Amino acid sequence: MVTTTEALGMTLGQLQRIAAAALEEDLGWGDLTSDYFIPPELTATANFVSRKPGVVAGLAVAAAVYEAVDPTLRFQILTPDGTTLQPGTVLARISGRAQSILRGERVALNFLQRLSGTASLTARYVDAVGGTKAKIVDTRKTTPGLRDLEKYAVRAGGGFNHRRNLSDGVMLKDNHLTALATHGLSLKEALLQARTRLPHLVKIEVEVDRLDQIEEILEGKADVILLDNMTPQELGEAVRLINGRAITEASGGVNLESVRAIAESGVDLISVGALTHSAPALDIGLDFIFGPPNIA
Amino acid sequence: MVTTTEALGMTLGQLQRIAAAALEEDLGWGDLTSDYFIPPELTATANFVSRKPGVVAGLAVAAAVYEAVDPTLRFQILTPDGTTLQPGTVLARISGRAQSILRGERVALNFLQRLSGTASLTARYVDAVGGTKAKIVDTRKTTPGLRDLEKYAVRAGGGFNHRRNLSDGVMLKDNHLTALATHGLSLKEALLQARTRLPHLVKIEVEVDRLDQIEEILEGKADVILLDNMTPQELGEAVRLINGRAITEASGGVNLESVRAIAESGVDLISVGALTHSAPALDIGLDFIFGPPNIA
Amino acid sequence: MVTTTEALGMTLGQLQRIAAAALEEDLGWGDLTSDYFIPPELTATANFVSRKPGVVAGLAVAAAVYEAVDPTLRFQILTPDGTTLQPGTVLARISGRAQSILRGERVALNFLQRLSGTASLTARYVDAVGGTKAKIVDTRKTTPGLRDLEKYAVRAGGGFNHRRNLSDGVMLKDNHLTALATHGLSLKEALLQARTRLPHLVKIEVEVDRLDQIEEILEGKADVILLDNMTPQELGEAVRLINGRAITEASGGVNLESVRAIAESGVDLISVGALTHSAPALDIGLDFIFGPPNIA
Amino acid sequence: MVTTTEALGMTLGQLQRIAAAALEEDLGWGDLTSDYFIPPELTATANFVSRKPGVVAGLAVAAAVYEAVDPTLRFQILTPDGTTLQPGTVLARISGRAQSILRGERVALNFLQRLSGTASLTARYVDAVGGTKAKIVDTRKTTPGLRDLEKYAVRAGGGFNHRRNLSDGVMLKDNHLTALATHGLSLKEALLQARTRLPHLVKIEVEVDRLDQIEEILEGKADVILLDNMTPQELGEAVRLINGRAITEASGGVNLESVRAIAESGVDLISVGALTHSAPALDIGLDFIFGPPNIA
Amino acid sequence: MVTTTEALGMTLGQLQRIAAAALEEDLGWGDLTSDYFIPPELTATANFVSRKPGVVAGLAVAAAVYEAVDPTLRFQILTPDGTTLQPGTVLARISGRAQSILRGERVALNFLQRLSGTASLTARYVDAVGGTKAKIVDTRKTTPGLRDLEKYAVRAGGGFNHRRNLSDGVMLKDNHLTALATHGLSLKEALLQARTRLPHLVKIEVEVDRLDQIEEILEGKADVILLDNMTPQELGEAVRLINGRAITEASGGVNLESVRAIAESGVDLISVGALTHSAPALDIGLDFIFGPPNIA
Amino acid sequence: MVTTTEALGMTLGQLQRIAAAALEEDLGWGDLTSDYFIPPELTATANFVSRKPGVVAGLAVAAAVYEAVDPTLRFQILTPDGTTLQPGTVLARISGRAQSILRGERVALNFLQRLSGTASLTARYVDAVGGTKAKIVDTRKTTPGLRDLEKYAVRAGGGFNHRRNLSDGVMLKDNHLTALATHGLSLKEALLQARTRLPHLVKIEVEVDRLDQIEEILEGKADVILLDNMTPQELGEAVRLINGRAITEASGGVNLESVRAIAESGVDLISVGALTHSAPALDIGLDFIFGPPNIA
Repeated sequence: MVTTTEALGMTLGQLQRIAAAALEEDLGWGDLTSDYFIPPELTATANFVSRKPGVVAGLAVAAAVYEAVDPTLRFQILTPDGTTLQPGTVLARISGRAQSILRGERVALNFLQRLSGTASLTARYVDAVGGTKAKIVDTRKTTPGLRDLEKYAVRAGGGFNHRRNLSDGVMLKDNHLTALATHGLSLKEALLQARTRLPHLVKIEVEVDRLDQIEEILEGKADVILLDNMTPQELGEAVRLINGRAITEASGGVNLESVRAIAESGVDLISVGALTHSAPALDIGLDFIFGPPNIA
Repeated sequence: MVTTTEALGMTLGQLQRIAAAALEEDLGWGDLTSDYFIPPELTATANFVSRKPGVVAGLAVAAAVYEAVDPTLRFQILTPDGTTLQPGTVLARISGRAQSILRGERVALNFLQRLSGTASLTARYVDAVGGTKAKIVDTRKTTPGLRDLEKYAVRAGGGFNHRRNLSDGVMLKDNHLTALATHGLSLKEALLQARTRLPHLVKIEVEVDRLDQIEEILEGKADVILLDNMTPQELGEAVRLINGRAITEASGGVNLESVRAIAESGVDLISVGALTHSAPALDIGLDFIFGPPNIA
Repeated sequence: MVTTTEALGMTLGQLQRIAAAALEEDLGWGDLTSDYFIPPELTATANFVSRKPGVVAGLAVAAAVYEAVDPTLRFQILTPDGTTLQPGTVLARISGRAQSILRGERVALNFLQRLSGTASLTARYVDAVGGTKAKIVDTRKTTPGLRDLEKYAVRAGGGFNHRRNLSDGVMLKDNHLTALATHGLSLKEALLQARTRLPHLVKIEVEVDRLDQIEEILEGKADVILLDNMTPQELGEAVRLINGRAITEASGGVNLESVRAIAESGVDLISVGALTHSAPALDIGLDFIFGPPNIA
Repeated sequence: MVTTTEALGMTLGQLQRIAAAALEEDLGWGDLTSDYFIPPELTATANFVSRKPGVVAGLAVAAAVYEAVDPTLRFQILTPDGTTLQPGTVLARISGRAQSILRGERVALNFLQRLSGTASLTARYVDAVGGTKAKIVDTRKTTPGLRDLEKYAVRAGGGFNHRRNLSDGVMLKDNHLTALATHGLSLKEALLQARTRLPHLVKIEVEVDRLDQIEEILEGKADVILLDNMTPQELGEAVRLINGRAITEASGGVNLESVRAIAESGVDLISVGALTHSAPALDIGLDFIFGPPNIA
Repeated sequence: MVTTTEALGMTLGQLQRIAAAALEEDLGWGDLTSDYFIPPELTATANFVSRKPGVVAGLAVAAAVYEAVDPTLRFQILTPDGTTLQPGTVLARISGRAQSILRGERVALNFLQRLSGTASLTARYVDAVGGTKAKIVDTRKTTPGLRDLEKYAVRAGGGFNHRRNLSDGVMLKDNHLTALATHGLSLKEALLQARTRLPHLVKIEVEVDRLDQIEEILEGKADVILLDNMTPQELGEAVRLINGRAITEASGGVNLESVRAIAESGVDLISVGALTHSAPALDIGLDFIFGPPNIA
Repeated sequence: MVTTTEALGMTLGQLQRIAAAALEEDLGWGDLTSDYFIPPELTATANFVSRKPGVVAGLAVAAAVYEAVDPTLRFQILTPDGTTLQPGTVLARISGRAQSILRGERVALNFLQRLSGTASLTARYVDAVGGTKAKIVDTRKTTPGLRDLEKYAVRAGGGFNHRRNLSDGVMLKDNHLTALATHGLSLKEALLQARTRLPHLVKIEVEVDRLDQIEEILEGKADVILLDNMTPQELGEAVRLINGRAITEASGGVNLESVRAIAESGVDLISVGALTHSAPALDIGLDFIFGPPNIA
């Protein structure tokens, strides 16, 4: 599981803590149903099966949940994260004591369905812009507590990551610009001055919603310009104006209908909050076969 | 804030830990943008404004986030959780140092948009079954780490709560029944025996997907019968058969189109996983007015 | 150890945290005595031996303590939890480095003696009511931090569990009834109204200390009636009055002398706070044999 | 509360964590009874009243519990820890929202009854040896997780503290001596050698169960000699033999009947495991008066 | 204290946790000296006084330590962090209960002396390169657990921060380059390919130790070139070669004697591991005046 | 690793927590450099090599760091802690996935260089007093969060440990004496009275800076006298005056030049704050050999 943990952007210990916390949230003082109704010696194998098309993400988290439930279970990943699923695809298999498989089922599925939901929605956006140079990127509009996993799911779906957090880069948005203006400081001057004090590995991105703001920002040597709520035509004009002097990002009004036209404007990046704040869960089920465990 | 904390189903300390963890996830080693661009002495007032219709939930969490950011800020709730919002409704107001308001903005909104998303979707289901006796209830298909808050949001939207966790009640689902069958134990016998050993405050719910399973379960003295994936007609027949001898719950195939017919079958409860696993975030923004703070 | 962990009502991770915290509390910055006086290469075997009659509980906790002390030790359980002990019974055996066995001795015994104390006292109450239908149940009068383990010890001693916590069921006691009365609300009405709002898996128990309170509570459809501080005669009368329409629980004035008469009144449950708040520790010792380890 | 926190041997933060953990253990996802039955606006005052004679300990812990429940409550300590109580003595008073007082009642009482139980039992031992020079001291046979509080309760009852943990002093007991013997090292030599390597502020105590072991230990310059399981006569002889060259401690077979004779043998200390492992809870109740709060 | 907390790059909660952990490490189960020798009612004022010249850093941490010790103390900062101190300068004053001031003294000083040590050493390097364009920057060679505070101390001393952690930017050092070479991938190609997959706000820095490596790295569009272990002459040549196409950083062999010549080579940044791994503590003392507190 | 963990004065669990926390501090959301540039299948062996003479300490911590990074790595200790190193000595070897070795390099080195720095400086002091009876002891002037490890490093360097914390012994320093004087209590009386109330295993140390203070302290039966800031001549006189009636400790003005003369005065202990507050890191590097792992 080590490789997968690194890919998740966290240590094995951090993954174990997240899985254990979720499990404890769901277990209370025990799974009364399994404890009182399922014979402890009963074994089973169960398949994680996709009920809908999509892209899988989070299998290592499901495995970590089951490791926390019962270390004698065997968890076998059949489709690596990022795989495109059809209804009926078996993603993974778990084998061992039936009580333990039932005990961890809901928590494993909660992670898997949610992260696969984000990966699947991301993949739809990525497909929609296929053939253009635009990358689909996420935002900080993530579920509190699950940011690293959700950003991983975006990557599993073929997307790219924007800032992880507020210290990962400077991003001046409309409210910051208004604040600066209130203070009587020119944006160009503010950018140049801050650059001399910021850590030298920090990049600066600035949001604009009008084309006439762009030149001053380029003079301030911003690395990235966020073009907010512009039409594809305005975006194209902005791209021509910037002409490679900064990375360009489009945001606002992005949905599966509009994203292709936005991409064709020539922007480098399109950020989509919905990937993490509004992706519906992917329907994945756990199908049991009671009997001797069938994973070696 | 004390009353609200109790309503959330957690202590003030638990709320503070959730808010602090989310804040630390987003802050990294500081908000470089605010630190390097916003004058520390600049103050502002900002309004949380709904951009879409919906139902608000989570204002106490947003307040706790800001309390963790900067205890000198003033946070004023204008519409209590559960209020129906129109586009433009101001939910709350925050006032004080502009750096601090900007620093906490994303995390406060992430909680507020997500919980209001669940409340809003719940309210739509509740409205859809208006006039019937059916209650809309949630499931354990919640976001890992946020179960109590999401179950609170369901209540804010007019819904009711199912089990919080696996020790909150017995719930025999299809896989449990298959396991029991594998073991050659009659369900009725299993129910009666387990009842003598279970804590006396625990209720038992059993899932069925066929009408002919119901009688045995009633003989086993189950408290609740979950009618899974039945048509409204089948549900109605089940309700007549059960005839008040157990609480009835419908699940499976529930959506905003189907829910009314399901409710009209006469079931007591309709459980909807989507309330917590697939509710889109409610669009809420934070509008700034820079200048002297305006909350006493 | 997995089966035992589940029986304890907690995950392996939770058990490990409890054991580790207790160990760190006792170790400070090391066991100076063992470190400075015991040769590191010395090995030993040590037997956990009961000095008094009783019932054992907590061997998995003792094992977890030693696992945290030194994973190379071998811990062998000889009598499963719930076994009746005579003076001299060997409960378990630990083998390996003598320094490590000495280092963990006190903490392992502290858990074992305390939990076996509760199991042993429970067993005496259970024996005392033998042949009646009454079950001995615990209360929430537990040691802060050890509730799940103590409730497990009650089960090991043949008892049953009441509520785990305040969200596990409604329990209206005298102070609640007085509060309701102050407020001018009829109890029956309050019960019926709350039922419509409470989660459907929650049961309601109401405390009475007079027979004339019972009828209203039955009309309010309470699931359980707690008969507080009544004589066996009053209890018998209450049981006849209730006549199976609610579960009956007796409490107050319960001790090893009085409990049989109480049980013979026909109540379903007798709750005993002393099981967890006043059970004396069971005297268990650890007898060393220095020499090569004798567990494979 | 600061003074009391220091007296407890912990920081305010540590006390708050212990109180919060206990509260969360008892609350689950909320106090359903208070939430659904008690009007939020109802206020009350409640008195903590002793039902039995004893000595109080732990009021600061009860106060910290209520601070965690609801910071708007007023908690007033009427008898400082260490006070001798009669049945009916009011120890403390709590005033404010009735829901909050009910919510914290059990946890506050669990701490108070348990710690007062230890203080009360300690006081009985202290009284029993009144007029002799012997001090009653505790052991490491404490409740896992509550050691500092229980050792505080011993002090509140007039007793003194032995080692807090394994790094607080060297204590060679029978098993250590056997291990040393196995290794062919003379005790005197082992003591003198270890002294040169131990931190210079560490004292050494050695257990003996025969008088003829004493001289070698004195030659090894032990600071304290533990006289285990000796009769009062043997103890007296040991005291004469040691003659002030080491502190003397008696242990084993100590109970309320035997302790006075042991004390009269002239030993400096008598250690009693029962103070912390078998003290019955002191019966303390919480009596409510509903109505306007009466603490300013 | 809010402003200072933000400047530290952490939330108030994170600062409180660091301070509390350090305090608990030092307190054990209480300050026996103060508890048993200092009258609880005695008050005092104490001055933090520099014994040597230097630059102060960490006063907010010392304040947080005292806040955790006793919230009734008054802590007054007299010289803000970053101030140049002379022997005898009073940095801060603490007033209140003498027991509390003594209890927190060592921990407060441990933070203050260590962080001021780093600030002071940084200031000496900054002074040494005065008038050149070179900035002094830190490294990741920090004390485990104290990175954010130490990087803050570097800023307080006039230095700048390099990467906070491994996700804050790409930095290819000699071992990475060897690994790439082993793999038969050209560095230029590797750089260009990775750029397309890396988050767009991430910068890339590459280490070289020979001038002939520079051109390929510039073709790979690295943002920063680390010139390792070069003589001032080589550095100057490298700067001319790079000619503004990348930021330049010098490292290796940097000490107070060599740093000026290195700076005069024209490099942008000079990184100094010793700022955090080998700065001697600044000698700061706490001078007591017993008597009534003198801070309002 | 168990033996080493015990030697560190902490449990395996505590060591793992310290290592994991340091790793998470350095990793952020992943090692972008290794993740994006190093082929996952590349393996390597790397040697920890001393660049300077010194004494090694902390190898078990480095091993724990790598265990947290990737449990499939093999870590082999070649020179046990306490070994004297020459430039070029290989201390340890790590083998396995190159990505993982690079990922943990900085954190492992940060622990190793810092702890070896303290061990090395300690060894220089110990060497300087060779042949005298004086022991070099540490102080509480340690790095917050790392006290146990630093005190271990002092032992690894041949030094001895003073108090671990404020409850490990009484130590009356100048400020305490002034406070007592303010209060009109004679020191002798204060010492004798406190002794009767202190736990019997606690020793008392008193600081003096004048010879005429000694007699009263001896009458008060202090166990240790700290002779602060005295010349070797005064120290010698103090030693003669005390004449074995108390342990003697010298402090103040101790450096590598002065320490021998201080030791020759005949004092038992010399405490040196610089061992932990100002020891420069020992220069240790990690040299890579890419290719198949070479540890079995």
